[in-house]
Amino acid sequence: MKIISFSRLALVYLLCSTGTSLFAQTDDSLMIRRIADHILLNGKSYEDLRHLTKQIGARLAGSPGMVKAEKWGLKTMEEAGAEKAWMQACMVPNWKRGGKDEAYAVGVVTSHSGKSVGRQSLDVVALGNSMGTGSKGIKAPVIEVSSFDDLEKKKDEIKGKIVFYNYKFDARYIHTFKAYSEASQYRGSGPSRAAKYGAVGVIVRSMSHSTDNNPHTGSTRYDSAYAKIPAVAIGLRDADWLSTKLSSKKFDVFIRTNGHFRPDTIGHNIIGEIRGSEFPDEIITVGGHLDSWDNCEGAHDDGAGCVQTIEILRTFKALGYKPKRTIRFVLFANEENGLRGGNKYAEEAKAKNEKHIFALESDAGGFTPRGFGFTVSDEQYNKLLQWKSLIAPYGACEFIRGGGGADIGPLNRQLGTAVAGFIPDSQRYFDIHHARNDVFENVNKRELELGAVNMAALIYLVDKYGM
Amino acid sequence: MKIISFSRLALVYLLCSTGTSLFAQTDDSLMIRRIADHILLNGKSYEDLRHLTKQIGARLAGSPGMVKAEKWGLKTMEEAGAEKAWMQACMVPNWKRGGKDEAYAVGVVTSHSGKSVGRQSLDVVALGNSMGTGSKGIKAPVIEVSSFDDLEKKKDEIKGKIVFYNYKFDARYIHTFKAYSEASQYRGSGPSRAAKYGAVGVIVRSMSHSTDNNPHTGSTRYDSAYAKIPAVAIGLRDADWLSTKLSSKKFDVFIRTNGHFRPDTIGHNIIGEIRGSEFPDEIITVGGHLDSWDNCEGAHDDGAGCVQTIEILRTFKALGYKPKRTIRFVLFANEENGLRGGNKYAEEAKAKNEKHIFALESDAGGFTPRGFGFTVSDEQYNKLLQWKSLIAPYGACEFIRGGGGADIGPLNRQLGTAVAGFIPDSQRYFDIHHARNDVFENVNKRELELGAVNMAALIYLVDKYGM
Repeated sequence: MKIISFSRLALVYLLCSTGTSLFAQTDDSLMIRRIADHILLNGKSYEDLRHLTKQIGARLAGSPGMVKAEKWGLKTMEEAGAEKAWMQACMVPNWKRGGKDEAYAVGVVTSHSGKSVGRQSLDVVALGNSMGTGSKGIKAPVIEVSSFDDLEKKKDEIKGKIVFYNYKFDARYIHTFKAYSEASQYRGSGPSRAAKYGAVGVIVRSMSHSTDNNPHTGSTRYDSAYAKIPAVAIGLRDADWLSTKLSSKKFDVFIRTNGHFRPDTIGHNIIGEIRGSEFPDEIITVGGHLDSWDNCEGAHDDGAGCVQTIEILRTFKALGYKPKRTIRFVLFANEENGLRGGNKYAEEAKAKNEKHIFALESDAGGFTPRGFGFTVSDEQYNKLLQWKSLIAPYGACEFIRGGGGADIGPLNRQLGTAVAGFIPDSQRYFDIHHARNDVFENVNKRELELGAVNMAALIYLVDKYGM
Repeated sequence: MKIISFSRLALVYLLCSTGTSLFAQTDDSLMIRRIADHILLNGKSYEDLRHLTKQIGARLAGSPGMVKAEKWGLKTMEEAGAEKAWMQACMVPNWKRGGKDEAYAVGVVTSHSGKSVGRQSLDVVALGNSMGTGSKGIKAPVIEVSSFDDLEKKKDEIKGKIVFYNYKFDARYIHTFKAYSEASQYRGSGPSRAAKYGAVGVIVRSMSHSTDNNPHTGSTRYDSAYAKIPAVAIGLRDADWLSTKLSSKKFDVFIRTNGHFRPDTIGHNIIGEIRGSEFPDEIITVGGHLDSWDNCEGAHDDGAGCVQTIEILRTFKALGYKPKRTIRFVLFANEENGLRGGNKYAEEAKAKNEKHIFALESDAGGFTPRGFGFTVSDEQYNKLLQWKSLIAPYGACEFIRGGGGADIGPLNRQLGTAVAGFIPDSQRYFDIHHARNDVFENVNKRELELGAVNMAALIYLVDKYGM
């Protein structure tokens, strides 16, 4: 296209008329504009993310990457201007994929119908926290189920087989997290539900509507009542291939994975703080999680949330903003397969009787801003709605109820803290989530920065007016 | 991240309470839901785009690609279910870049300060419609200007030199088209304004805030009062390099380009139609432009708008929707360097005294939907606002005033037709705009499809209730 004239900025300015006094609004508008200008012109989050993903890379709890990332986080928090920065220790699980040959399936080695379907490699990734097959692997017939209902119908046919959950990510949901919350059950509880009927292994269709064949990992949760059977994810093309072949033939699949737990080890939340000038005992938390799955760079999940968090700190310091309340910038440990960091943070806050008035998490990717989701009281929500017109010009124009973040959930549950989740556009998130293509190259600089702008604006308003 | 519960869908449902009667709203909600489900589950726009970009590719007016694209467009429109489909001929300009060595600059061959800066290739692309240097190229000292104001200050130093417009795309604008509308002046009128003071050539910094070095083309417009001097764009890294070097040294740049015009040739708008069942004389147009620059696949600009247009037609037919009004689906010719297609469409409409009540264009990329921009009367705008809550759940939640599209501009100016432009998220558009990386791989399937969903919903409502 060539040029279209837009009167959008003018419109947005006119819209900024709700809320408190006109003076305060104008004042706040100007401050938010300063925040945005600083981040969009001088932001360092993109280069921080490049370092975190390219120099450090994968950083699952218990891995060498985790240790490197923690050191980087502390140093970067200090350089960004934290008045105080520290590491908060917590024990974290230590799951290992188990070497380079950590997970693979060799398609089809035996056909029961006489005709071989050939040996077909499947591109697999073992589910996080899953137990390995042992060095000899397992070979068993595969039975496809489309859902848990379908599993129940076929429960008498499951014994000794590998269950293939071919549940399809529902493209009809506009917000893709809704599709994910339905589909991810099969990864979370699928293995144990299959083991209940005697399955020896599980294959899940990846929780994605991508157009590629990358398999997506993520944590599974074994029910201690049943055998901890091995479980892998496959990409969408392989899932379609497998389903097509199974519709006409019976055959075995061979799987070998090496997942196992070592003893828990020490991990850390990385915390930077600016102490409040008027109400230092009222604490506001903003954060993301520092850990990532071991099969990717964790660029969107959740390198983005970490570098956005640090960017807000850096920007407040650069602009000379002195918060009224204490703001903590937190890179949480072990969100992906344990949530020990988030739990530890809330436990210590409770033990010290700290007053946590608000927490915001960015853990839905570094995409263009759409809004915030709030788990707050009616009164708090009405207050937040008054600020919407101040933030909307920067992209986050949807203020919805519900939402928060895994790491700040314990604060909400244990201390009653009002929590919010940053909501970026969700269309591309499950193309890369927990897959090898969650890399720096798939993050757009401006989208990442605008996330930090919108989050900083919200934190500024909560700090100024309380919650 | 793992799972966050969202109550967004519920909220959106509650919000759907403005507008006409509850019955009509529910009815319309259901129809729009059917449209969305159909496109998200069965859409063919992504595969259409793959064909248009990978099998046909670049399709500048007058090129063999244009002819292939026209044939494809007509066939695809017919297959999608157009009751009538035709080609509307118009004369189009026939600019040629001039062979494989169409545009290059070899950095620095002479240093006036004694020290050579070395020979440095610059990654250049000649501006569209620009005249070539001749086979021997030009070599001249370079003078950098940061703006037109700066050019005026330096007007006595311009003669015999190559003017380097290093105007920077302003990152502070949240909507990137605002930055573009400012920056693109240097591409459009920069060559003639420099020629006025005796410049022999022009280099412009690309109109982009990308992180790569791809140069971005686009049309320039010569003022017939001055010499038609050659003009090229360079990427952002080269622009920074050039600026840094010029700050300490004087040196020449060599440029050779081969741009020239051949005689005008015949191009076509591709039009598909469904005739209205109640008000066949009231015409609604929806479209994008079929041409693209010659240096890219034109995936976002504007392959996306074309395949979305066809998707709407296909969806209406698949759902058995019988419009009350006549809907025309148009792939316009020659938007990029002439607008002859858009002009022809309006001229013929005027000559035939057709009643064009509304036109919608998608020409800002196949990105996730944000809204629509309307050039309409106050009364029409108020009517449109009543429909916002029906469309917002699908992403287009900003209904702003101003906007439309280059190709439907003539309809608005000549017939007074109410026009609208689809507004996708703009953050990534100028990373790829008119550059070699405007390729299929940079279009996301769901984002593309959601654009079609939102556009289809708007067309459905305009058809049902009139404008």
